[in-house]
Amino acid sequence: MGARAVVLLSGGLDSATTLAVARAEGYTCHALSFDYGQRHARELESARRVAQALEAVDHRVLRLDLRAIGGSALTDDIEVPKGRSAAAMAEGIPTTYVPARNTIFLGYALGWAEVLGAQDLFIGVNALDYSGYPDCRPEFIEAFERLANLATKAGVEGTSRFRVHTPLIALSKAQIVLRAWELGVDFALTWSCYEPRADGRPCGACDSCLLRAKGFAEARLVDPVAAP
Amino acid sequence: MGARAVVLLSGGLDSATTLAVARAEGYTCHALSFDYGQRHARELESARRVAQALEAVDHRVLRLDLRAIGGSALTDDIEVPKGRSAAAMAEGIPTTYVPARNTIFLGYALGWAEVLGAQDLFIGVNALDYSGYPDCRPEFIEAFERLANLATKAGVEGTSRFRVHTPLIALSKAQIVLRAWELGVDFALTWSCYEPRADGRPCGACDSCLLRAKGFAEARLVDPVAAP
Repeated sequence: MGARAVVLLSGGLDSATTLAVARAEGYTCHALSFDYGQRHARELESARRVAQALEAVDHRVLRLDLRAIGGSALTDDIEVPKGRSAAAMAEGIPTTYVPARNTIFLGYALGWAEVLGAQDLFIGVNALDYSGYPDCRPEFIEAFERLANLATKAGVEGTSRFRVHTPLIALSKAQIVLRAWELGVDFALTWSCYEPRADGRPCGACDSCLLRAKGFAEARLVDPVAAP
Repeated sequence: MGARAVVLLSGGLDSATTLAVARAEGYTCHALSFDYGQRHARELESARRVAQALEAVDHRVLRLDLRAIGGSALTDDIEVPKGRSAAAMAEGIPTTYVPARNTIFLGYALGWAEVLGAQDLFIGVNALDYSGYPDCRPEFIEAFERLANLATKAGVEGTSRFRVHTPLIALSKAQIVLRAWELGVDFALTWSCYEPRADGRPCGACDSCLLRAKGFAEARLVDPVAAP
């Protein structure tokens, strides 16, 4: 068995691909998901299936109280934007931004890694096609990595040198789709939509659905979870 | 009303003093506590009473799943060390260290601050009398401050410049006791013990009780919550 890694797994296409990459690189993967009151709790069921299919040795779902803080369309009664153009998405930070989310998620991943004796964290952030979230940029990741080595017993005692791996950070959505396909990710198990329809299918209009559709179209592959 | 600040409040002497400092500096204080499965959940009741006494305008207690990660005497079935000398405490990192705790706590404080439009965070860490925790040191705090300004919408858009205030970081426990006394903190409302006795009184032997007792002794004040 390879070195242990903690992989953040939302159940979406990007995090599933990230888990597949970590596994292909030989890591023994411990997957971590969060139930934070998100509208699209459907993604947690996908996370469970993806973790199993990609042979994570452990998968934990932590319940978080992000709703108690509020401030996001993903957790509050703020409207999820629909039907936006790529140009509109590229402008500014969307309301689906959850304040400090990746700081909190990586904080938990770091804590678990320390307990496991792991020094590798994987997160499927992507700065290219969707640069709207500040905590998906390389400078954020570098700052977190620096923090991680100051924050922990393992970092301070020098028994671990934490690294945050972001294998998708410079890929387009089409490149992510192709990478997933090469690695044998079962697309049907993944879930991207922020606000599923009443019949349980993706809305096809939120930023996440639109980016996924664009990625599959450009990669010339068919998405089994496409909106009707 | 002054600028808003988010103050991490455990219910112990240090965080109560920190809240008193923030208030004395004119901030409108939003207090934040965490119910993370700690042995000494008794401190949360103290946090409520301290927040009220020191006129925080809001006090939220978030439930966290730190037990799901484990790795600490404060959340697991690991023994809390008792009766240690100051020299023993100064050596290495104690088992009461909770992996990545302050990274996670400050992550939530940052998220809440962003939602509130606040840019000031207060945390009662102390590097002098109890330097055993890596995430209580100035270099950790500086790294978090840097991260905060990269992690957030407010930081990236330049509408906020987050600061992490650590008014106690260079004080001895005796100096903290005196500062609290000057600011009118009601010592009787605070709680420090890691592992309360069955009769509800402090154990008097854990690191936290011993440090508190030393602080009061050196400050020549009487602790109303002293162990029997």
